[in-house]
Amino acid sequence: METMNITDPKIHEYLMNLAHEDDRHILEMERIAKERNFPIVERLVGRLLFLLAKIKKPSLVVELGSGFGYSAYWFAKAMDAGKIVLTDYREENIAYAKNLFRETGHAGKAEFHVGNAVEIAKDYQNIDILFIDIEKRDYFDAVRTLLPNLGSHALIIADNSLWYGKILDDEKDKETIGIVRFNEYLSENPDFMTTILPLRDGVLLACKLS
Amino acid sequence: METMNITDPKIHEYLMNLAHEDDRHILEMERIAKERNFPIVERLVGRLLFLLAKIKKPSLVVELGSGFGYSAYWFAKAMDAGKIVLTDYREENIAYAKNLFRETGHAGKAEFHVGNAVEIAKDYQNIDILFIDIEKRDYFDAVRTLLPNLGSHALIIADNSLWYGKILDDEKDKETIGIVRFNEYLSENPDFMTTILPLRDGVLLACKLS
Repeated sequence: METMNITDPKIHEYLMNLAHEDDRHILEMERIAKERNFPIVERLVGRLLFLLAKIKKPSLVVELGSGFGYSAYWFAKAMDAGKIVLTDYREENIAYAKNLFRETGHAGKAEFHVGNAVEIAKDYQNIDILFIDIEKRDYFDAVRTLLPNLGSHALIIADNSLWYGKILDDEKDKETIGIVRFNEYLSENPDFMTTILPLRDGVLLACKLS
Repeated sequence: METMNITDPKIHEYLMNLAHEDDRHILEMERIAKERNFPIVERLVGRLLFLLAKIKKPSLVVELGSGFGYSAYWFAKAMDAGKIVLTDYREENIAYAKNLFRETGHAGKAEFHVGNAVEIAKDYQNIDILFIDIEKRDYFDAVRTLLPNLGSHALIIADNSLWYGKILDDEKDKETIGIVRFNEYLSENPDFMTTILPLRDGVLLACKLS
C-alpha cells in the first residue's frame, strides 16, 4: 500500500502558511531533519505540544524518544516551571539537545538520558505528560509498563498513531501491529479518555480520568 | 468547488470505530442531528472538548452558539466544578439543552440564554474557555469583541475553521471570508499560540499566552 494522505495536502499547506516561525533553533532543526530525512514531529505537532503544555502546566514531562530535542524544545518553551526528561538511544542526538537547551536557557529544567527510554522512565513518578515517539512495535508494552508512573489526570501524547495509514492494511507488519494494539488498548481503557487527531501522522491524546 | 475531504474517509472511519459510545444522551443527539441535518460538532470533536476541559479544569466556559447542547454536554461531563454558559438564538434548542442538563444532573453548573451570543457573552468576565460555533461571518468580530472578557491563559476553541475546505477557494463568500480573517487574526496575534486541527471540519485552538 502506498503512503496515504491522512490530511488533504492543500489543507496541510494552508495550515503551514498560518504557522509562521521566527525561532532560528526551530528552523535549524527543521532544516536538519529535512536534509537527513530524520523523523521529527514537525511544526504543526510542535505547536500542539506547546499549546497542550500551556494548558496542562505540567510539573514533569517525560519523553520516550526525544530524537535531537525538537519536541522537547516545544514543551520547554511552554513551561515556566517544571522538569522535562529527554531520552534517546543515540548519544549524538542527546548531545545536540543538550547544546540546544544550554544555548536557549532551558537547560535548568531538563534532564538528559542516553539509553532505553522505558527503563529510564521507570525511575520517574507522577508523570504529568508522557510523550511517546519510540520504535512503534514498543508502544503497547511501553504504556502498559509505565501506567503506575503516571500522575493523576496525566496526559499521554503519542506520535505516529496512524502510521502513514498502515493501520488500515489487511496484512500488518510488527510496527503497525504495535500501534494498532496501543490505539485499541487506550481507547478501550475506561480509566482514560482517548482520541486520535488526524494531524500529520496521527497524534493520540489520552487523558487519565483520575 | 465540491466539498472536500479534509481527512481521508477511511481514516475517519477508523477513528470513529475507536470512539465507542454508550451514553444514550449523546447517541440520541447524534441521531437527531443526522435525521434533521442539524449541525453538531460530532463525536470526535466532542471527545476533544471533553479532553481539553479535563486538562484545563475551567471555572467558566462560555459557548457562542450551543445548538441543542451537544458540545456543552461534552464540556459538562468533563467538569467536576465550574460553570458553563449556553447560548443560542432559538428558544427550542435551549429548551432541549435545559431538559438534557436537568435529566443528566448537570443543571447546577449551567446557565442558559436565548439571544445574540456575543451580546450575552459580554456580561461574563474571566472566561477560561470560549467556544465559538455561531454564523461563520461573525467569527472575526466575535473574537475581537470578547478579547477583554478572556481570563489569563484562556483557551479559544472554534469549530468549522476549515469550512469544508472553502478557505482555499479563489472566490470566497461572506462566511468563508469571516473564517479566513478569524484564522489569520488569531494566528498572527502574538498574544496567542494558535493552531488548527484538521479534525472533521477544522478545530481552531488558541491559547492566550498571559
